[in-house]
Amino acid sequence: MIIGNVVGNLWATRKEESLNGLKFLIVETIEKKTIVACDFVGAGIGDKVLITLGSSARKASENMNISIDAGIIGIIDGIEGE
Amino acid sequence: MIIGNVVGNLWATRKEESLNGLKFLIVETIEKKTIVACDFVGAGIGDKVLITLGSSARKASENMNISIDAGIIGIIDGIEGE
Amino acid sequence: MIIGNVVGNLWATRKEESLNGLKFLIVETIEKKTIVACDFVGAGIGDKVLITLGSSARKASENMNISIDAGIIGIIDGIEGE
Amino acid sequence: MIIGNVVGNLWATRKEESLNGLKFLIVETIEKKTIVACDFVGAGIGDKVLITLGSSARKASENMNISIDAGIIGIIDGIEGE
Amino acid sequence: MIIGNVVGNLWATRKEESLNGLKFLIVETIEKKTIVACDFVGAGIGDKVLITLGSSARKASENMNISIDAGIIGIIDGIEGE
Repeated sequence: MIIGNVVGNLWATRKEESLNGLKFLIVETIEKKTIVACDFVGAGIGDKVLITLGSSARKASENMNISIDAGIIGIIDGIEGE
Repeated sequence: MIIGNVVGNLWATRKEESLNGLKFLIVETIEKKTIVACDFVGAGIGDKVLITLGSSARKASENMNISIDAGIIGIIDGIEGE
Repeated sequence: MIIGNVVGNLWATRKEESLNGLKFLIVETIEKKTIVACDFVGAGIGDKVLITLGSSARKASENMNISIDAGIIGIIDGIEGE
Repeated sequence: MIIGNVVGNLWATRKEESLNGLKFLIVETIEKKTIVACDFVGAGIGDKVLITLGSSARKASENMNISIDAGIIGIIDGIEGE
Repeated sequence: MIIGNVVGNLWATRKEESLNGLKFLIVETIEKKTIVACDFVGAGIGDKVLITLGSSARKASENMNISIDAGIIGIIDGIEGE
């Protein structure tokens, strides 16, 4: 998984059907990359979050057939020792 | 997922069977990488799009057996905060 | 797989259900990237570890449906020749 | 998918069983990376090709159990606009 | 797939159960990255090898449930044209 900060959100009226109702957040990762992740834990702009990538992102949703490849699976409370 | 801009399209007469009838667009990602993605939402040159990678791209198609690893799953209307 | 050093740990009260009870360690990989991996072998800060990525990380857990994409699958005793 | 140019081929007598009979081409991607891809469309040195990565590469073969992670799935005739 | 040179090996007494009995080699890829791959063809230090990544690495083993994400699937005899 990777650590990132939620910096924005985006919306797309014309999108693939399986994505309807999902919330897309823009995240800047600690490696300074910008990705878009589907929110599963109620995160918002300013939150430090834990992101899972690839087929694992689909596992965070009840629907294994959604076409996402990145999911926010935790809002980080604290980090020790890093 | 990643954000990119559609900059072109490509065609290949000699291609793997499962790809017949699919539309391939060339996308420059916001990380300045050039990839080819299969279009599922009617995107065109100049559109800012949302792209999913890996096995998730196959989920955007009814046919789970197509050999694609990148799919355009949304045309971005707006971005807030990024 | 990749080699890394455990440099910290993190906790997240609000997290995706399948992650409850799992231990998340922060690892700096030998390519100087920072990732978060789920611990399956009792590793701790200071350990040199072997990490598997993607769907393979789920194979290290009895529950194939957890939404992780990185797992610590070994504590390295020794390296020869590298 | 990614675009690349076929620059060579390789052979390996001692190889994993599922690879017997497959043709391996060396491709330089437009990101200047060198990868090896399994040919599914009769490509050769000098061809500009379309490559799929990961589990999608296995979908280009009738045998889903071959241990490849990159496949040439098209010979590019033309590119417009890029 | 990627090309690499075997530069060492590693051992880990405390490791995930599915890895028991497997041989782990340290490989430097032609992109100068250091990875660890599970050996399926009897490779050793000094060999130039073909490596498959991700879920495809599990396909090289009879046991689809091992938690590896990189496998050595060929010892390269020769390269032409690269």
